[in-house]
Amino acid sequence: MKRIDDFREIIDNYEVVFFDAFGVLKNYGGLVPGIERTFEYLEELGKEYYIVTNDASRSPMQLAESYHKKGLNIITPERVISSGMLTKEFLDLKVDDGIVAYLGTEDSAHYIESEGLHTLPVSAITAENFDKVNALVFLDDEGFDWCNDLNKTVNLLRRRTIPAIVANTDFAYPVNVNEIAIAVGGIAAMIETIVGKKFIRFGKPDSQMFMFAYDLIREYRPISKKEIVMVGDTLQTDILGGNKFGLDTVLVLSGNTLAADAQNRMTSTGIVPTYICDSAVIR
Amino acid sequence: MKRIDDFREIIDNYEVVFFDAFGVLKNYGGLVPGIERTFEYLEELGKEYYIVTNDASRSPMQLAESYHKKGLNIITPERVISSGMLTKEFLDLKVDDGIVAYLGTEDSAHYIESEGLHTLPVSAITAENFDKVNALVFLDDEGFDWCNDLNKTVNLLRRRTIPAIVANTDFAYPVNVNEIAIAVGGIAAMIETIVGKKFIRFGKPDSQMFMFAYDLIREYRPISKKEIVMVGDTLQTDILGGNKFGLDTVLVLSGNTLAADAQNRMTSTGIVPTYICDSAVIR
Amino acid sequence: MKRIDDFREIIDNYEVVFFDAFGVLKNYGGLVPGIERTFEYLEELGKEYYIVTNDASRSPMQLAESYHKKGLNIITPERVISSGMLTKEFLDLKVDDGIVAYLGTEDSAHYIESEGLHTLPVSAITAENFDKVNALVFLDDEGFDWCNDLNKTVNLLRRRTIPAIVANTDFAYPVNVNEIAIAVGGIAAMIETIVGKKFIRFGKPDSQMFMFAYDLIREYRPISKKEIVMVGDTLQTDILGGNKFGLDTVLVLSGNTLAADAQNRMTSTGIVPTYICDSAVIR
Amino acid sequence: MKRIDDFREIIDNYEVVFFDAFGVLKNYGGLVPGIERTFEYLEELGKEYYIVTNDASRSPMQLAESYHKKGLNIITPERVISSGMLTKEFLDLKVDDGIVAYLGTEDSAHYIESEGLHTLPVSAITAENFDKVNALVFLDDEGFDWCNDLNKTVNLLRRRTIPAIVANTDFAYPVNVNEIAIAVGGIAAMIETIVGKKFIRFGKPDSQMFMFAYDLIREYRPISKKEIVMVGDTLQTDILGGNKFGLDTVLVLSGNTLAADAQNRMTSTGIVPTYICDSAVIR
Repeated sequence: MKRIDDFREIIDNYEVVFFDAFGVLKNYGGLVPGIERTFEYLEELGKEYYIVTNDASRSPMQLAESYHKKGLNIITPERVISSGMLTKEFLDLKVDDGIVAYLGTEDSAHYIESEGLHTLPVSAITAENFDKVNALVFLDDEGFDWCNDLNKTVNLLRRRTIPAIVANTDFAYPVNVNEIAIAVGGIAAMIETIVGKKFIRFGKPDSQMFMFAYDLIREYRPISKKEIVMVGDTLQTDILGGNKFGLDTVLVLSGNTLAADAQNRMTSTGIVPTYICDSAVIR
Repeated sequence: MKRIDDFREIIDNYEVVFFDAFGVLKNYGGLVPGIERTFEYLEELGKEYYIVTNDASRSPMQLAESYHKKGLNIITPERVISSGMLTKEFLDLKVDDGIVAYLGTEDSAHYIESEGLHTLPVSAITAENFDKVNALVFLDDEGFDWCNDLNKTVNLLRRRTIPAIVANTDFAYPVNVNEIAIAVGGIAAMIETIVGKKFIRFGKPDSQMFMFAYDLIREYRPISKKEIVMVGDTLQTDILGGNKFGLDTVLVLSGNTLAADAQNRMTSTGIVPTYICDSAVIR
Repeated sequence: MKRIDDFREIIDNYEVVFFDAFGVLKNYGGLVPGIERTFEYLEELGKEYYIVTNDASRSPMQLAESYHKKGLNIITPERVISSGMLTKEFLDLKVDDGIVAYLGTEDSAHYIESEGLHTLPVSAITAENFDKVNALVFLDDEGFDWCNDLNKTVNLLRRRTIPAIVANTDFAYPVNVNEIAIAVGGIAAMIETIVGKKFIRFGKPDSQMFMFAYDLIREYRPISKKEIVMVGDTLQTDILGGNKFGLDTVLVLSGNTLAADAQNRMTSTGIVPTYICDSAVIR
Repeated sequence: MKRIDDFREIIDNYEVVFFDAFGVLKNYGGLVPGIERTFEYLEELGKEYYIVTNDASRSPMQLAESYHKKGLNIITPERVISSGMLTKEFLDLKVDDGIVAYLGTEDSAHYIESEGLHTLPVSAITAENFDKVNALVFLDDEGFDWCNDLNKTVNLLRRRTIPAIVANTDFAYPVNVNEIAIAVGGIAAMIETIVGKKFIRFGKPDSQMFMFAYDLIREYRPISKKEIVMVGDTLQTDILGGNKFGLDTVLVLSGNTLAADAQNRMTSTGIVPTYICDSAVIR
């Protein structure tokens, strides 16, 4: 593991940069100050970049817009790779027709809808359409009544043998400097234990997330894993996943992992990035 | 493992009988038909009996009343041993003062209240009383707003280093022949994973439950474990717990475990009762 | 949590003291220097004490002797309560006849042998006596060939539906200041996952361990839990178990938990002792 | 899920077939009788096929040879994709120099050796070369002394913060009709729990295994996931992994999953193949 003072050095040494979103580009308060310079520099050098995020609550279009609203206009939907996209690919490939029941907001569901596949919130599942449900997706922790809809989900999955897809594997997420909230990945794990069936999970550290991004690049240019670097603030997702996929990795200290804890956490988890850098902002 | 045709044979061979409640004495529809004969026979012979239940949602008084309403007048509060009683003992011994925050109904909380210890639903915890909370108890899955109060619980346990007690360890419970509901034990396990702290659990199969009943008996008469039999419908709680504590055990087929599955489940879990009997009803 | 300077203060305030062994009374190098004064003081005041240990590798007799050899002659076998004793009680109550197969040394097995129950190392199980094996006990990590005997154990437990007892639940134990070794509890957990059956575990933090000691005392004198204190060096076993059983607890810093880490570990695990004291040695 | 009578129908409908090895192509007794006809038919139609196996105990070359010895000469090393190959890719990309310590046979280690990276069995790690160990790989359950070398591995991983790679994630494997053996994946999981660090796992159901095969094909021809089918005998690895990657899947009943259990297992795990077929043999 090597300490890097200026993130510019990272950019100079790779052809493609993958960024985690929360804790790297933005934080509770908005954008990480100065992060736009990083993207200007990337554009200047003609280097590729992608935002690789465990976020299935919104479409790539909506995620890109959220950066525009914060003042980072450079991010286009094509640059965003989310666990929601893997969910959509799975449904397109593996579920031919019928209803996809979901837990989440209407926005999150709209994106995974496609020809032949109709999405319906768990609350709208009735005795009539129960047998037409061919998949269940955990998209977001908002947009439903936890007590009613989680109990309904448990019984749906006990009685119907259908794929259950977890589109965000995180157990919790930060809501401000002091507080976290239960994420839909935590809820899904509880239900998986209760019903005793195997769910399908998309999101870092799982390799399929990185492969999706890697494949996108290779559609228009040749690239080797040695030329890509993954930048993240979380050892267990960004760094573990990047390492396993064979990428070099950068731990930035602008989010989940504080400078004071970094060494301790690497030692206790055994997860070590290629580099550590204060932030993804170039000086 | 020995098949027993008439539960009378069990009673004849032991001095004390421990009964699980749900699936043994009662079911969705009310009392297991004929179960009153079992208690009449026990009284006739002057044998002891206790109901040993993973139920912290009501006090022993209220639990006894619920049997009276169903027509089983013989059950007195002294005969009921619940995981709620262990919770109360723990709080009395280990938490001297302050607030006990809880998830559950007001009824469940009333019972654990005591001199010096004030109970408050998680929803009533504020910035003002936050630092006076000296324990948190998971009592019941009802009586609170899941989304708000579970997130509040997560943050309370992250910031305060206080004991978290799970008064019902079950992950789910049956609500009718076809449906189950998430129990507070499942919710507690999810939160334990998220906050990364060790919770204290009371309830079968844990030995402390059996110990509590065993101790109660010994207050007024000498008894050995060989003279007690545990009767239950669930291998993982009643039978495993009874076996581990050193009691003989009876699996009855009037609840969770169906006759057709019993052998399979014993083989796959490795949990074997001393006896199997159709029900706890004497012929 | 209260800091205590002199362990004498603990003794003065309780009627009975439970001591963990390793890290409290002894260490790699032998006895904790000065620990004999603690026992002299206890004797002087006529207070009770027990050594409560997750050690099933030797009988109480042998464990007491090991203290004599180190120079602590005061410890008699009656003062030692081990997870091996719970295993013996379980076998006596629940396994009537046949062979008890075991993993461990001959010494560890000798102790659990009893009338009607013949012990045999897993290595001595053959096609001929296979069907007479009525229980399997994990006693110690020594005394057998890991590769052969663990594979044999897996197949024994897959084909015979018999109780599997884990007499030492620890996953690892220290062998010197820098090194640990895999304990039989870790091996048992691996095999439990592979065979998919529920094993029976004895040892702290499980309550049955404390209850056994508590019962022993009550055979000759009345005592309440408020009058007993548990002293240990490990939050996850000694302190968690003591707390759950309703005892006051003392974390000593002479073993597993270093002074520098104590606060951190309490915060991260949520396990808090009643007191912290440098060691169990009185000044 | 659709029942297919003749495996020929599967071949006719896909461009590429992925086969699991054990339980599909071979069994305890040798080749599945008639399996050579399947490969002749594939060659006849000019269809692609790969053997995708959780086997890191031998190189693709040695694995191919093992089929030749059994009489299936058609299998070339290029057709074999093993979790050992992913391990090799990881080491090549992520570990620049030094020693790779391993648990397994010399044969298994020879394959992962490369320029700059020297492999050494755990037994050969000494105080002198300890600090040069830059990775540890779990390759096979054979070729080492379990007790000594597993304890040595635990201490190596506690003191050095290096990647630990599990090249075979299975917990157990069949050795004959009645018996199984502990696989290195089970051993690795025990050690992971003891040392508390995150290991890197390769092998089905993980997507990276399927990705590796998918990438190999795309080097010489365009292909979509819809044109590939995964054939396996195990729901939890072959079918779950294939489904998640977006492939159609065939459960064959010639190995781990018996015809009588198939429906039950699908219902209880929630893992459902696209097709079920008696075997991969064409009629």
